[in-house]
Amino acid sequence: MGLEDAGGRTALEIAVEAIAGGVTMIQLRDKQAPLRQVLEQGARLRDLCRGHGVAFIVNDRVDVAVLLDADGVHVGQDDIPGAEARRLLGSGKLVGISAGTMEEAEWAMANRADYLGVGPVYATATKQDAGEAIGTDLIGAITDRWKIPVVGIGGIGADNAAPVIKAGAAGVAVVSAITRQANPMQAARQLADVVRQALK
Amino acid sequence: MGLEDAGGRTALEIAVEAIAGGVTMIQLRDKQAPLRQVLEQGARLRDLCRGHGVAFIVNDRVDVAVLLDADGVHVGQDDIPGAEARRLLGSGKLVGISAGTMEEAEWAMANRADYLGVGPVYATATKQDAGEAIGTDLIGAITDRWKIPVVGIGGIGADNAAPVIKAGAAGVAVVSAITRQANPMQAARQLADVVRQALK
Repeated sequence: MGLEDAGGRTALEIAVEAIAGGVTMIQLRDKQAPLRQVLEQGARLRDLCRGHGVAFIVNDRVDVAVLLDADGVHVGQDDIPGAEARRLLGSGKLVGISAGTMEEAEWAMANRADYLGVGPVYATATKQDAGEAIGTDLIGAITDRWKIPVVGIGGIGADNAAPVIKAGAAGVAVVSAITRQANPMQAARQLADVVRQALK
Repeated sequence: MGLEDAGGRTALEIAVEAIAGGVTMIQLRDKQAPLRQVLEQGARLRDLCRGHGVAFIVNDRVDVAVLLDADGVHVGQDDIPGAEARRLLGSGKLVGISAGTMEEAEWAMANRADYLGVGPVYATATKQDAGEAIGTDLIGAITDRWKIPVVGIGGIGADNAAPVIKAGAAGVAVVSAITRQANPMQAARQLADVVRQALK
């Protein structure tokens, strides 16, 4: 799950609900706020995640991930390369890498990704530079080729998560499907149920 | 000196000229390019600086500064706090902090800055969010209060650098006054001459 705009509620409040609903990983992603504030709020989010055995990942900024002692970092193709991120993070940390094509997946694998974020599976309004929806085929092709956990991302919700998992994904990453819902806990629970069912 | 847009020439080419002209510090600042590319070009810039005894500083991204083994990092008030930056960089590295008010200078001093970047002294078109020009008074007030090197920044060139130094600055930081000139080496030399004269 990613948290970036929490409307009336704070990101922390939504995270509390999302964890109660069953999310297993939370990614800190905030490109607008001053980093001083991101570090303060990130520390609270990290403590929350730790208390619940939920993985806490920082997007893009490896320096922030190190300072927050996050469980890992997620980097895009334009961010710090995964191998370099791992060098800064030290051993025992997760490095997730985004891939939208097989070539990008190859690069991510060469950078020793621990998991791949693949998408945008469906059309999304959350990430404006996400590009065209690519569907679920690439997830199938990647998981056929490598033994690596793939997380589908982009426009995913309870109504369309099942095909992503059936294509080979180990999970789904969402923003609006939880953060923009009237009841984030219920939304997270519903989504987690769909994923668990599809994984069977 | 900062390098961010080099027009027809590459940043490295301009840096070669600027160093020949007498700049003593180069700051890597590129918020647009993919970080993979920033790291590649940054490594070349670092090697160039090292070969000439010129300090090589990375703006904002502490992770990039660590990966490039830069001489230090420069952070703004909205970036990673100086004390945290130092924690990541390790000892023996420089941490420069921007300040546009006495309150910001106090915060920077509390964060154990090695030097302060103070401005915008004059109106500048290079940094769009730089705010209103503040003149040279703050530089005087800061250098009266603390024994810390202050670098004036914002709209500074050979024609108006002297008052910045006379106000108490140890140096000036420029972008367009070197990078946007037909002859960057000559521009750097002229600026360095003005600064040296004013320091006497």
